[in-house]
Amino acid sequence: MKQKEKLLIVKVGGKVVESPSTLKQLIKDLVAIKNPKVLVHGGGVLATDVAAKLGVKSTMVKGRRVTDDRMLDVVTMVYGGLVNKQLVALLQRHKINALGITGADMNTFLSEKRAVRDVDYGWAGDVKKVSAKSLSRVIDAGITPVIAPLTHDGKGHLLNTNADTMACEAAKALALNYDVTLAFCFDKRGVLMNEHDDDTVIRVLKRTQYKALSEMGIIKEGMIPKLDNAFEALDYGVKEVIITNAENLSDLSQGTHIK
Amino acid sequence: MKQKEKLLIVKVGGKVVESPSTLKQLIKDLVAIKNPKVLVHGGGVLATDVAAKLGVKSTMVKGRRVTDDRMLDVVTMVYGGLVNKQLVALLQRHKINALGITGADMNTFLSEKRAVRDVDYGWAGDVKKVSAKSLSRVIDAGITPVIAPLTHDGKGHLLNTNADTMACEAAKALALNYDVTLAFCFDKRGVLMNEHDDDTVIRVLKRTQYKALSEMGIIKEGMIPKLDNAFEALDYGVKEVIITNAENLSDLSQGTHIK
Repeated sequence: MKQKEKLLIVKVGGKVVESPSTLKQLIKDLVAIKNPKVLVHGGGVLATDVAAKLGVKSTMVKGRRVTDDRMLDVVTMVYGGLVNKQLVALLQRHKINALGITGADMNTFLSEKRAVRDVDYGWAGDVKKVSAKSLSRVIDAGITPVIAPLTHDGKGHLLNTNADTMACEAAKALALNYDVTLAFCFDKRGVLMNEHDDDTVIRVLKRTQYKALSEMGIIKEGMIPKLDNAFEALDYGVKEVIITNAENLSDLSQGTHIK
Repeated sequence: MKQKEKLLIVKVGGKVVESPSTLKQLIKDLVAIKNPKVLVHGGGVLATDVAAKLGVKSTMVKGRRVTDDRMLDVVTMVYGGLVNKQLVALLQRHKINALGITGADMNTFLSEKRAVRDVDYGWAGDVKKVSAKSLSRVIDAGITPVIAPLTHDGKGHLLNTNADTMACEAAKALALNYDVTLAFCFDKRGVLMNEHDDDTVIRVLKRTQYKALSEMGIIKEGMIPKLDNAFEALDYGVKEVIITNAENLSDLSQGTHIK
């Protein structure tokens, strides 16, 4: 059987791409990775900033943005335009042939508008289908997809979508054809035993430990959906999931390895 | 010799994509065109509007926008994000598999920052090189490129670029491999003998006539660079250039045919 080609999917939060110093390091690290790669980015801080300047109020519920008509325009401009295209231009400068996309482009991520239950998140999307074909075609042409956290509903609407989820769904869909490593980069050095001490990184986290630590309240809040995504990715054949700091992207032995 | 495949390149101005009624008609017309196609769009009116809301002043010199740092962010958001991605989502709704790009994506349009002579246009780009390979790869996969009027300089900067010029440069580059028709859609029904009378469309315009009519001052101002682009495209093997109203996109026998 032919060995699958290695593919690294990197998710970086808004904070990383919005600060010139961390952005510079990110680009440098991506340049050093010679294998095919996919970048999924956020941009929430900048979206809140641009929204405020336009007089659009940001409302977050359980850490997720409520997206009304005007906020959808803002995130379309900031995620799909400003952050995405600046990343592409910077990558091109360093000879990484990048293609910036949203989920609407090439019908890559088809979503469903989130049903209103206790909260109406507005134009928020839950991913239903990833086109591995669209992504593979780009990757196999030697091009690096740079994915903004927007999807579409197939009915003409863009939808604001969680970047972690998109990275996870892309990893699951691509695991059939590639040997996928999924790296979630955030502001901590990994999953911590003590959230106030960056030296307490859990090096390897297995499902049974995760269950125990979350029941004990040691792993909590925003880390829960991230880890649920991580374990789900493993179930779908993703080879390795790493939760790490963007600064450690050049050394993926660092951080928390989900197994 | 194998016959070249037909390809229609359509350039539509900001006014067409910014008004819901003309936008709806445009999408309908594009759906009716079964041959491979490329869409190049503007978005200037919306950019001016968003800029004003953000407190960024729009300065136009000889019909072209002066693009300082803040204005570059605005056009990146509006052209590369809002207008481009909304078009892509609408096309997807109608089963046209679209891919929205700027010139930075896949290194499709490499430009040079415009040299400062009498006017400093700031981050304005003059196209140096079009990657026919990047565009062909997309087109041959059955995907419709939707091109925003932004390019890059290969040094990490995006550049604000004239959409007519980008359509013309794309047509020239693709003429080697396709049988290209280039349609410039604008608010008049074609090149007019009397600019105040829409019934005076010049049906066929040859170079000698153009020269005479421009010397007589009948063809003037904004029409001059458009027609210079058109004749240049013919010189590079583009089969047909049509200047028409977006409303007549479904009947390309209308408008002015440049020969």
